[in-house]
Amino acid sequence: MIVRPKTGWFRMLFAWEHSVRNTILAPLGIIFLLSLAALWGYRRSDAFFLCLSPVPFSLIGVALAIFASFRNNACYERYWEGRKQWGVLSCATRDLARYAVTVPSPAAAPSDVRHLVNTLAAFVHVLKHQLRGTDPSRALHEFLGDAHARDVLRRAHRPQYLLTCVQRQLASWRRDARIDDILLAAALAHLDRLSQAAGACERIRTTPVPYPYEVLLHRTTYFYCVLLPFGLVESIGWATPIVTVFIAYAFLALHTIAGELEDPFGQDANDLPLDALSIQIERAMRDTLGDRDLPPAAVPDARYRLD
Amino acid sequence: MIVRPKTGWFRMLFAWEHSVRNTILAPLGIIFLLSLAALWGYRRSDAFFLCLSPVPFSLIGVALAIFASFRNNACYERYWEGRKQWGVLSCATRDLARYAVTVPSPAAAPSDVRHLVNTLAAFVHVLKHQLRGTDPSRALHEFLGDAHARDVLRRAHRPQYLLTCVQRQLASWRRDARIDDILLAAALAHLDRLSQAAGACERIRTTPVPYPYEVLLHRTTYFYCVLLPFGLVESIGWATPIVTVFIAYAFLALHTIAGELEDPFGQDANDLPLDALSIQIERAMRDTLGDRDLPPAAVPDARYRLD
Amino acid sequence: MIVRPKTGWFRMLFAWEHSVRNTILAPLGIIFLLSLAALWGYRRSDAFFLCLSPVPFSLIGVALAIFASFRNNACYERYWEGRKQWGVLSCATRDLARYAVTVPSPAAAPSDVRHLVNTLAAFVHVLKHQLRGTDPSRALHEFLGDAHARDVLRRAHRPQYLLTCVQRQLASWRRDARIDDILLAAALAHLDRLSQAAGACERIRTTPVPYPYEVLLHRTTYFYCVLLPFGLVESIGWATPIVTVFIAYAFLALHTIAGELEDPFGQDANDLPLDALSIQIERAMRDTLGDRDLPPAAVPDARYRLD
Amino acid sequence: MIVRPKTGWFRMLFAWEHSVRNTILAPLGIIFLLSLAALWGYRRSDAFFLCLSPVPFSLIGVALAIFASFRNNACYERYWEGRKQWGVLSCATRDLARYAVTVPSPAAAPSDVRHLVNTLAAFVHVLKHQLRGTDPSRALHEFLGDAHARDVLRRAHRPQYLLTCVQRQLASWRRDARIDDILLAAALAHLDRLSQAAGACERIRTTPVPYPYEVLLHRTTYFYCVLLPFGLVESIGWATPIVTVFIAYAFLALHTIAGELEDPFGQDANDLPLDALSIQIERAMRDTLGDRDLPPAAVPDARYRLD
Amino acid sequence: MIVRPKTGWFRMLFAWEHSVRNTILAPLGIIFLLSLAALWGYRRSDAFFLCLSPVPFSLIGVALAIFASFRNNACYERYWEGRKQWGVLSCATRDLARYAVTVPSPAAAPSDVRHLVNTLAAFVHVLKHQLRGTDPSRALHEFLGDAHARDVLRRAHRPQYLLTCVQRQLASWRRDARIDDILLAAALAHLDRLSQAAGACERIRTTPVPYPYEVLLHRTTYFYCVLLPFGLVESIGWATPIVTVFIAYAFLALHTIAGELEDPFGQDANDLPLDALSIQIERAMRDTLGDRDLPPAAVPDARYRLD
Repeated sequence: MIVRPKTGWFRMLFAWEHSVRNTILAPLGIIFLLSLAALWGYRRSDAFFLCLSPVPFSLIGVALAIFASFRNNACYERYWEGRKQWGVLSCATRDLARYAVTVPSPAAAPSDVRHLVNTLAAFVHVLKHQLRGTDPSRALHEFLGDAHARDVLRRAHRPQYLLTCVQRQLASWRRDARIDDILLAAALAHLDRLSQAAGACERIRTTPVPYPYEVLLHRTTYFYCVLLPFGLVESIGWATPIVTVFIAYAFLALHTIAGELEDPFGQDANDLPLDALSIQIERAMRDTLGDRDLPPAAVPDARYRLD
Repeated sequence: MIVRPKTGWFRMLFAWEHSVRNTILAPLGIIFLLSLAALWGYRRSDAFFLCLSPVPFSLIGVALAIFASFRNNACYERYWEGRKQWGVLSCATRDLARYAVTVPSPAAAPSDVRHLVNTLAAFVHVLKHQLRGTDPSRALHEFLGDAHARDVLRRAHRPQYLLTCVQRQLASWRRDARIDDILLAAALAHLDRLSQAAGACERIRTTPVPYPYEVLLHRTTYFYCVLLPFGLVESIGWATPIVTVFIAYAFLALHTIAGELEDPFGQDANDLPLDALSIQIERAMRDTLGDRDLPPAAVPDARYRLD
Repeated sequence: MIVRPKTGWFRMLFAWEHSVRNTILAPLGIIFLLSLAALWGYRRSDAFFLCLSPVPFSLIGVALAIFASFRNNACYERYWEGRKQWGVLSCATRDLARYAVTVPSPAAAPSDVRHLVNTLAAFVHVLKHQLRGTDPSRALHEFLGDAHARDVLRRAHRPQYLLTCVQRQLASWRRDARIDDILLAAALAHLDRLSQAAGACERIRTTPVPYPYEVLLHRTTYFYCVLLPFGLVESIGWATPIVTVFIAYAFLALHTIAGELEDPFGQDANDLPLDALSIQIERAMRDTLGDRDLPPAAVPDARYRLD
Repeated sequence: MIVRPKTGWFRMLFAWEHSVRNTILAPLGIIFLLSLAALWGYRRSDAFFLCLSPVPFSLIGVALAIFASFRNNACYERYWEGRKQWGVLSCATRDLARYAVTVPSPAAAPSDVRHLVNTLAAFVHVLKHQLRGTDPSRALHEFLGDAHARDVLRRAHRPQYLLTCVQRQLASWRRDARIDDILLAAALAHLDRLSQAAGACERIRTTPVPYPYEVLLHRTTYFYCVLLPFGLVESIGWATPIVTVFIAYAFLALHTIAGELEDPFGQDANDLPLDALSIQIERAMRDTLGDRDLPPAAVPDARYRLD
Repeated sequence: MIVRPKTGWFRMLFAWEHSVRNTILAPLGIIFLLSLAALWGYRRSDAFFLCLSPVPFSLIGVALAIFASFRNNACYERYWEGRKQWGVLSCATRDLARYAVTVPSPAAAPSDVRHLVNTLAAFVHVLKHQLRGTDPSRALHEFLGDAHARDVLRRAHRPQYLLTCVQRQLASWRRDARIDDILLAAALAHLDRLSQAAGACERIRTTPVPYPYEVLLHRTTYFYCVLLPFGLVESIGWATPIVTVFIAYAFLALHTIAGELEDPFGQDANDLPLDALSIQIERAMRDTLGDRDLPPAAVPDARYRLD
């Protein structure tokens, strides 16, 4: 995620927006060359054989507008829902930590509470690694110790298994009569929220926007941009290259951003900062336990990027 | 569902998108022939009798944009809601499995827990078969044994009956004093989530987008595409066939994708991968029981298709 | 509701879509005559006094697009929310039937359970009649017997009263110690869902889309369609009648469908099939009781219409 | 709210829609005079100095479409959410009345139940008066008697205080062992729904659509309408006044309706019928108690208006 | 927030809308100068070298419409969700105050109840300061006394810690047998709502609309506005400066408003009035305790601004 602060209207015109620009430089270059060709052809002969009228562009424009705004909305919604689900994770883990500290009576042993919090932190980190397709071993060893970590790594559904561990611990508190059935049910409700949030993240990751939308919008956008100079050259003459490249820039960049947001858990510049969120969740739980030596919060790098 | 990974911008222009292309080849061919006819007529005489101006297209375009983006959104929402409901199924079955393993005290007999999980897996598979209109017998025999399977097959509402079976088992745990009323109520809440998700899937399957929308959009799209060459030929001359076919391709493909997504539980290439999801649900439950010999996860075929 | 199966792209162009076509035949005829008049006037003199340019149409088009897509979305959302609420009815009644069969311990008397199910079925049918403004007596007599039916008919809020009856019965089970307070509270939660769904249906029926929207869109649509031939005649000549009638057909049909969906509980061809849904709900409950002689499910008539 | 029944397509063209028409008569008159001026100027000299081309209108049209459809949707959503919240009020009060009649065991004294229902009815009426900024004294005296009414009137947050009174009464039932903690918690959940609905209504009333949107759309709409005749006169000649006034009518009316719906609890013709809803809520609760002499339901006046 | 009452249509044309106007004066001035330059160039020679046709504007217009309405909706939704979350805070704090006054039996000591309410008020104020990045010390000292305030200030997640304090107090009531487990669970549910609302506010504040959207829309808007005079000058001549500045005003103002609403918890003129809402929440809780000397409600200043 880019967390660049707002600047004045003038400086913002020249802001750097990372990945987007890199991805579309090549097609923009091609389109620029095509506009020069269109201009050259048009100058050479008025009856330049590829000189289109602007009419088809407004017709394709209708299709493009429907497609692009649909895909854009769908992708942004996936991004925002992903963020909301991590908000649920953040909230339910805090609620469980608060619960563990205040509710059991007689109070649970501090080491037990710490173990619960560690398992929850491991759950969050493992989920992050699963969503990103990276290796969770280090996080597991750090939070759970080697034996338990190896046990978790053997499982097919690791986040799910860690929730089972937490639930086992809560059930043991009931057996020790620290909480009764009602308060156990209240705690299970928090675990179910965690389970649902993890499931929702998985759903977003495994179910992309239907593939033909991608292909169709991709083709329409490029077809539109490639034909553009031949449609504009008659009406705006030598301004064709500038205007064409700008219009193409707007459409291709929109297309690229939506593509990045589609899988919000990836590691593109505009994806969700799952590292920062995981640390934040861990910090909040430790703060509830009263710890003083919290792990440092993640900060954006020099290019305003937060992972 | 197509799970094709993203490729570069250039290769994506030539990606294959299965069913969509097949469905619209015939009308696209007809439209191509019509554009050749328009071009031929226009070349022969400037006062070609079918030569329209582009004006009506921008007017029909307004109607088409309203219709198409409405239907597209409505259909995608059905698809996405269908996926969400299967996410709920996935989540609630895991939560029940986790519950069965950790909550009853004294713990439930392993065979009882396995029976519960089998009934839930049967529920998911039967629901899948009901939504697709296919035969559930094999799945039932596999999960429940012959006697129970025959019993289920006699029922009119099989998923519903399997939930009743699960609920009976939970009620028997209460009679055995393994869980008390509060924890029974918590488990019933999970069953109600399953019942609601099944009901929502049924709702989506039995209530299509109102039929006149289909017909109206269908007609408007085809009318627009068929008239298109006669409206464009005057302004863009020999480019008419290419541009016409491309615009028609965009609109017809959009129309076809939306039609596939409308019933997300079917067996079109872009429908939800219910087979894969069912196996996934079964795997997650068995993993919670600690099984090592999980059924293999479904993988996409060579054409990136996952059923 | 029309449940016509999908046909090929060609046959669908000529599908019959019931009410919509009938409602708009008269205005379409008038618009056709107006286009002939415009054509005749234009042929007679190039300076035909009513010959507009296409400019105002694109300006009115903006207003029309905003209005029409707003109203269309609002009406479809009412339709879909109506369907969702009937889905809630369907689900909560099943959940209550399942509850009655499995939860009370010692089990409730079969006649008691049947009485509960009958009262719930009566509730659903009475709600249907209230939403449609038809007479519920027959359904009440059938489900509840004459004495009870007369009692219900005396009430001002009959669905509400039937819920009170169900609740009374559940409360009596608690007094008989078949269920305790917690399980009573769980059952009351189902009743509250029924009460909320009934309230939401009532809300949709009694609160139409604000009237000025109806009037304004109606006027804008007709004004647009009536002026259309005079605006097109100059650019497209003798094609005016066909194109005009087609554009008018698209806008008027969109207007009419939205009008039908606005009150989804009516008896228009595209309204919700409340008869079929009520029978379906009854069937599902009886199936849970283990009945074999279920009432037959509703099927669409020869014109694919399901009430 | 206007509850005018649907009429045929022809009569609807001339329906009366109350306030909207009155508000925009003056600006429409001015715009009509401006079109006459434009026509006169254009006839007098072809090079009329204010004769614009239609180009800027399609550009402003884009801005106008974004603004107007955004504000329209936002305002309608406020209206519909307001209605939903009153639906929640309606539902939760019924649920509480049903609860009071059936759940307490031994049954609560009839006078106690009636007192509860009266307090709830007073709550609804006081909320209505607070949302409308009118005086609640009469309703309070009628429902609660003079002493209690004076007590309520002294409070800063009257609806909130009435909920506290209801909650006190429910707590007293627990002390009398008519209900236990679980059923008390179930009743408190209903009160919390009432409290949330009241809070949501307050939120809608105190947080308008951000003011600059209002101003900006207002200015854009008027600027557009005032320039319109000068842009159209060249293309459509003497039809300018009719077409201009019609387009201006559509945009100004849309603007005015949205403005009425923005605060749905006011007393404009299209606002929510809070009087009718309050009486309806009271009737439903009394019907649950078995009362025969219900207050008469509110009916629309001769102009189809329901307050 | 600006709470200016509605005025007549004429006076509203000249209303003052604070920050928006200031932010865009400079760019508007530049655009005005550019239009004068375009006009001067066009007058001097018909073949003015920068004279564009209006064609590219309708093409950029499509991109601009997609972008601007997307960002506008996204930002407004953030604003409205922020308001809803503060509505949840407002509601859940009242519900807790009502709970503390009526539910515990034997009743809690008045000083205990007051302490609970003070901690909740401190929670709300601290959250406000955290969202705005301002210093919470004064509010903490005022509500909690010096010792407790210092304790809170040492924590990394202060709102979270205050909730832990409240929860501790509720748990102590259970130990004193004033409430039992069920009613404790009901109270914890309110705390979880507070925790969720605080988490949601944090989510909105820390996750802006993805940065490339900002940059892209910014660039498209400015590019469009800067080219505008050169595209219009040919068709509308000397009216160019007025029309250009007006169109630019509409687009830039829309852009600026959305930018203000994006972070609804800031201190721009159109942001949420968190000061007023915090005081309102405090007043409502004190009113429930029966206090007479409520802190005065916040009122808008002379320019209708409420912070």
